[in-house]
Amino acid sequence: MADNKKMVEEITSMEQDFAQWYTDVVKKAELASYAGVRGCMIVRPYGTALWENIRNDLDSRFKALGHENVMLPMFIPESLLQREKDHVEGFAPEVAWVTHGGDEPLTERLCVRPTSETLFCEHYADVIHSYRDLPKLYNQWCSVVRWEKTTRPFLRTMEFYWQEGHTMHETAEDAMEETERMLNVYADFCEESLAIPVVKGRKTDKEKFAGAEATYTIEAMMHDGKALQSGTSHYFGDGFCRAFDIKFTDRQNQLQYPHQTSWGMSTRIIGAIIMTHGDDNGLVLPPAVAPVQLVILPIAQHKAGVLEKARELKDRLSAVARVKLDDSDNSAGWKFAEYEMKGVPLRLEIGPRDIENNQCVIVRRDNREKTVVSLDELETKIPELLKAVHDGLYQKALARRESMTYTATTLDDLCAIANEKPGLIKAMWCGDEACELKLKEVAGITSRCMPFEQETVADTCVCCGKPAKTMVVWGKAY
Amino acid sequence: MADNKKMVEEITSMEQDFAQWYTDVVKKAELASYAGVRGCMIVRPYGTALWENIRNDLDSRFKALGHENVMLPMFIPESLLQREKDHVEGFAPEVAWVTHGGDEPLTERLCVRPTSETLFCEHYADVIHSYRDLPKLYNQWCSVVRWEKTTRPFLRTMEFYWQEGHTMHETAEDAMEETERMLNVYADFCEESLAIPVVKGRKTDKEKFAGAEATYTIEAMMHDGKALQSGTSHYFGDGFCRAFDIKFTDRQNQLQYPHQTSWGMSTRIIGAIIMTHGDDNGLVLPPAVAPVQLVILPIAQHKAGVLEKARELKDRLSAVARVKLDDSDNSAGWKFAEYEMKGVPLRLEIGPRDIENNQCVIVRRDNREKTVVSLDELETKIPELLKAVHDGLYQKALARRESMTYTATTLDDLCAIANEKPGLIKAMWCGDEACELKLKEVAGITSRCMPFEQETVADTCVCCGKPAKTMVVWGKAY
Repeated sequence: MADNKKMVEEITSMEQDFAQWYTDVVKKAELASYAGVRGCMIVRPYGTALWENIRNDLDSRFKALGHENVMLPMFIPESLLQREKDHVEGFAPEVAWVTHGGDEPLTERLCVRPTSETLFCEHYADVIHSYRDLPKLYNQWCSVVRWEKTTRPFLRTMEFYWQEGHTMHETAEDAMEETERMLNVYADFCEESLAIPVVKGRKTDKEKFAGAEATYTIEAMMHDGKALQSGTSHYFGDGFCRAFDIKFTDRQNQLQYPHQTSWGMSTRIIGAIIMTHGDDNGLVLPPAVAPVQLVILPIAQHKAGVLEKARELKDRLSAVARVKLDDSDNSAGWKFAEYEMKGVPLRLEIGPRDIENNQCVIVRRDNREKTVVSLDELETKIPELLKAVHDGLYQKALARRESMTYTATTLDDLCAIANEKPGLIKAMWCGDEACELKLKEVAGITSRCMPFEQETVADTCVCCGKPAKTMVVWGKAY
Repeated sequence: MADNKKMVEEITSMEQDFAQWYTDVVKKAELASYAGVRGCMIVRPYGTALWENIRNDLDSRFKALGHENVMLPMFIPESLLQREKDHVEGFAPEVAWVTHGGDEPLTERLCVRPTSETLFCEHYADVIHSYRDLPKLYNQWCSVVRWEKTTRPFLRTMEFYWQEGHTMHETAEDAMEETERMLNVYADFCEESLAIPVVKGRKTDKEKFAGAEATYTIEAMMHDGKALQSGTSHYFGDGFCRAFDIKFTDRQNQLQYPHQTSWGMSTRIIGAIIMTHGDDNGLVLPPAVAPVQLVILPIAQHKAGVLEKARELKDRLSAVARVKLDDSDNSAGWKFAEYEMKGVPLRLEIGPRDIENNQCVIVRRDNREKTVVSLDELETKIPELLKAVHDGLYQKALARRESMTYTATTLDDLCAIANEKPGLIKAMWCGDEACELKLKEVAGITSRCMPFEQETVADTCVCCGKPAKTMVVWGKAY
C-alpha cells in the first residue's frame, strides 16, 4: 500500500487549500488540462465521457418534453448583437471579435457567440407566422465564448460547453410555465442524476440575465460553503420579439408578439460535482453519470484462473453497469488509489480465495464500506449498491448544506456569520438594490436567490430595517 | 390529391436545374436554412436529428475500436498554427481571425480552428512520454470554420460540423494500419447505414491534405454524375511530431517520434445523402439514419376508432422503429406529399376499411411499392421493409454509378466523355502532376483518387502517353 499512500499525498488536502485541492483533482483525475490558449481548457477523455453522460441524460429529459435540437452558427454580426439594448450592454464587453477572414478585413465584425438569443430570434422571425407554429421548443448543444479575466477549469473558462434552450410561446402564461418547468428539469436532474441538492429560486433584478424580465436559478452549496449557480432559466416577455419584429397571427386573427424563454446548463456543473462530492482522495462521482460505475480489480492476477474469472465477470456485468477491468501490471495499491482518485463508485476485488468461495468483495467509493457478495447475486447486488452510493452522496450533501445554512435578522449578525462561518445565510430583504450593494460591501456576500420556498425569518430587511418583502439566500459564490 | 400535386410542383425537377433542385430539397424538407451570417447555415430540427443519428452511429463504431472523445479549444494561436510549414500554407488563407477580446486588442491573433492537428499535437506533447502511452486514439465532435468564397448548405459552408480523429502510434506500420482502418470504417458506414456505395482510394499528392504524407478518400457519385469526397483519412508520418517535439521512450529505451493519423467526416455527408437518393418528390432517407422511419397516417380519421387504432399502432411500433403519427387536420394528400418531401422511408395508412380487415397499407418511399400487411405481422414486416428500402437504395445507387463510369485510353476519348457524359472516368496516369493540371485545363476534371481496386485499362498515361503507373478515377467534383 506504500504507493497508494504516495499517490494520495500528491493532492493538497481540502482543509489546507481548497482551491489547490480543486485544481489537483481536475488534473490528477484527468478530467481536464490547461490549453496553450489563454483561459481555455482541454477536456480529456475522462472529462468528456462524464460530459457526454450529463448531456445524454439532460437531452433525453428535454426531448421527452417535446424539445428539438438545432445547430445555429457560432458567429453573430455586430449589428445583430446590438438589436436588443440590455443584452448588448451585458455581453459586448466580454466577447471575442472576428475582424478578418483570411487576409481580408471584414466589412462588419462578427463576435463568437457568448449566448444565442439574437441568432434564435433572427431565425424565429423567419419561421413563426401563426399560432399553429407555436410553441417552438428549440435547444442546442455547443460551446460559447466569454472573454474572462481570470479562469478556472470548468468553473469559469473563456470557452465553455453548454446547452441553451430557446423557446417561443403564444402567451405570457405559457412562457412562464416553460421557464419554471425547465428550472424543475434542472433541479430534478441535479438531485436524481448528480445527487446534488439545490435551492430553487428567483434572481434579484441586479443578478438577472441581460435582457431577461425574470431569471430563475438553482444554487448548490460546495464543500467550502460557497454557492455555485448550477443552471438558469429566463423569462423574456416579448422584449426580444419586439426588437426582432417576431409576430404571429393569433387564434382571433390578430397580430401578436410571442413570449420567450431561454435556459442553460454548462460544463460548470462538472465543477459542482467535484466540489460537492469530492474528498481528500480525489473525485467521487454520482453513479448515474460516472463514465465507469464499477471497476474490476483482479487480486494476485498471476495466479491461475484469476484473470479468466475477472474477464468473465466484466462481460457478464456489462449488462447491468458501465464496467472497466484493469488487468494492467500496476500494483493493487496503485490501482486502488487510481480509481479512488477517479471517483469510480464501486470497486470489485476478486482473487484466488474469493473464486474458491464463489464470492468477491465490493467497496463503495463514497464511504469505503466493503460488502462480500456471492458471484451468483452480482446482477441484483450491483444496481442496489449503485443506488446506495447515490443516496449516500445525496444525504451527505443535503446534511452538510443544512448544517451550513444560517439565519440572520440583524446586520451585525449577518456580518458576523459571513465573516466566521462558511455557508449560506437566510435573511429578509426590502427589495432595494442599495441594500444588496451594501451587503456586498460590508459582508462580501451577494444575493444567490429568492427561494420559491419562502420563510418569514423576520419582518424587516436585514440591512435597512424597512419592512421586508422577501427572504433571500445570501452567500459567497463561484 | 390536388394539393399533393401542388406541393410537388414547388420543387424544381432535377433535370431542369440540379443545383436548384438541391437547394429546394434542403429548404422544403426543412433540413437547413440560410443564416444572417454570410456562408453559415441554420441546421433545423429535422437536419439536426439526421446529423445526430449519423453522429451516434459513427461514434459507436469509433468507440468499438477503442477511440475516446475529447474536447479541445476552438481557438488556435497564430504561432501554433505556424508550427508546421505545409499545414499553415494550406490553411492560413482561409481562416477567421479573432483580434479583439471585449475592447482590448489581443497581443497575438487567434484563428478559429479550421482543423485541429496543431492543438492535438500540443496536447500530445504533454501526455505522451512512453510507448505505454501509445496508441492515443482521440476523436472530437465539433464545428470548424473555413473562410469560403462561395457556399452551399451542407456541401460547402463557412462553419461546418464534423468529427476529427487524431491518433498517435508507436510505429509507421501501426499508423498506416489506423489510416486504412478508419477509411474502411467510413466506407462501411456509407454502405451499411447510408446505402451509399463508395470508391476507396488514395489521393494524388496534388489533392492531399496540407501537411499529410498520404491522404485516403472515399468518393461517392451524385445523381448528376459528379463526385463527392465523403470522408478522408490521413497518414502524417512523424512530420508534425518533429515540428511539435513529441517524443516517447520506446521498448528499447530509445527516444522516438510517434507516427500520426487524422481522419474526418462532416455534415457534407448530408449533401451526399440528398444527391444520392433524392428524387423529384424530395428527400429519400436511408432507414438507418432517418429521424422518422415510419409515419402513420390515419385515413378518414374523423370516423370512429381510426385515431384510437392509429395511436395504438404508434405505441406498439415504437418498439421496432422510429415512428411518427400525424393526426393533424391536414388533408391526406398534403400529408402524403409532406412525408415524401421529408424522405420518410415507410408510410403506413390505416382507415376504417383496413381496421375492419385487421390490416393496413405500407408504402415504400423509394419505389412507392404498396404492401397490404396484417396488423398481427407488423413487428416482423416493418424491419423487413426497412431493410428492403435500404437494399433498394443501395442497389439503385450502385447501378447508377456503374452505368455512369467510363473508361478512356486516349486524351481525345477522355475529353469527349468529359464533355458529353456526366460521370466518372477511369484512365491511366503516369504520376506526373503536369498531366493532372492539363486534364483539369482541357477536360475540366480532377483526379478523385487512385482506387485500391486497380485495373490496367491501358499501359500508357491517358494524357502524355508515357508508361502508366496507376489507374486514376477522374471526374468533376463538389
